[in-house]
Amino acid sequence: MSQINGNYPSRVLQDAVEAIGSLPGVGSRSALRLALHLLRQPSESIHQFACAVDRLATDVHYCRHCMMVSDGDVCSICADAKRDHRTICVVESVRDVMSIEATGQYKGVYHVLGGIISPINGIAPSDLHIKELLARLEEGMEVILALSGDVEGETTSFYLYRQIASLGVKVTTLARGLGFGDDLEYADALTLGRSIVARQPFKP
Amino acid sequence: MSQINGNYPSRVLQDAVEAIGSLPGVGSRSALRLALHLLRQPSESIHQFACAVDRLATDVHYCRHCMMVSDGDVCSICADAKRDHRTICVVESVRDVMSIEATGQYKGVYHVLGGIISPINGIAPSDLHIKELLARLEEGMEVILALSGDVEGETTSFYLYRQIASLGVKVTTLARGLGFGDDLEYADALTLGRSIVARQPFKP
Repeated sequence: MSQINGNYPSRVLQDAVEAIGSLPGVGSRSALRLALHLLRQPSESIHQFACAVDRLATDVHYCRHCMMVSDGDVCSICADAKRDHRTICVVESVRDVMSIEATGQYKGVYHVLGGIISPINGIAPSDLHIKELLARLEEGMEVILALSGDVEGETTSFYLYRQIASLGVKVTTLARGLGFGDDLEYADALTLGRSIVARQPFKP
Repeated sequence: MSQINGNYPSRVLQDAVEAIGSLPGVGSRSALRLALHLLRQPSESIHQFACAVDRLATDVHYCRHCMMVSDGDVCSICADAKRDHRTICVVESVRDVMSIEATGQYKGVYHVLGGIISPINGIAPSDLHIKELLARLEEGMEVILALSGDVEGETTSFYLYRQIASLGVKVTTLARGLGFGDDLEYADALTLGRSIVARQPFKP
């Protein structure tokens, strides 16, 4: 690593390497490699790259219903009359929406919390879009808590459940167990144990 | 991979992911992760990032002597009177200069070819800064061919040698052999074989 912490031949190059190296998972060596790659491109390509990134700061909107990234005031899912607007799937981030959408199995709408309760990272319930979620709920709706299975995800699910339970809303969560096609031999003990406890009727 | 080749919730996000994903070694999943990371930053940070990259297109100059990336017309190495300007180390890229500089062992100057002769990739000698190198050479100088040890590097070294040899210039190349501290057991056969053939006097 030492050879690239030294002197950069150009302040402009150094600034670009430091900017790229500030991205998560991009080390200083990779950042230099990427900056030099960009430098070899035509000016117009570099400019287009920079513009595409810059527009993240200026041109991205958030859906006023589900808080999802959107090009307009309402996202395409919330604007779709064919979706079931009485089933709301609560997720942590935009990526989760994209993952669930890619399955093609879900016809309800979403609510993006924008994070997860995490005292260690200083994220309190008030930092999340929980108020906006509660404002959307009406009696008879279903809320699917589709958060991650770790301690923070469980904590957030429990917190939301406490807030929602009294509103006459059905609260569900994702089924957990062995993945389809998973081999017992390679399953972790926790998942396998819970799969046995939560065993289901065999449907031939 | 399938879940992110689907519909992006925002055209702006999609453009940013595609731009980031066009970088070498950055897959579409990583590109989405990086774009969403940037999206979570304050607008000012995103803008700074984009500016730092954009300036690669507008504010980077190349040293008129050694063709190295520079902030001005002449790079700091060529402008340094304490360096030996009669020893020129020929390298493929800016990165190689930084690697050699980091060793602190070299006091001469450089010449950046900007690539390597590669018929497969359509890179001919005329695409490299060879003419500029020849224009710098004077009788009694030393040229160190510090190119990579693969076929293309060897080909380029040989081509340069043919061009330079008649100019009364001393041509040298990097010492090759086992790395310092290397274990014989793990050395590749080619390197070990050449190390034996090119054995050197033992200096206790």
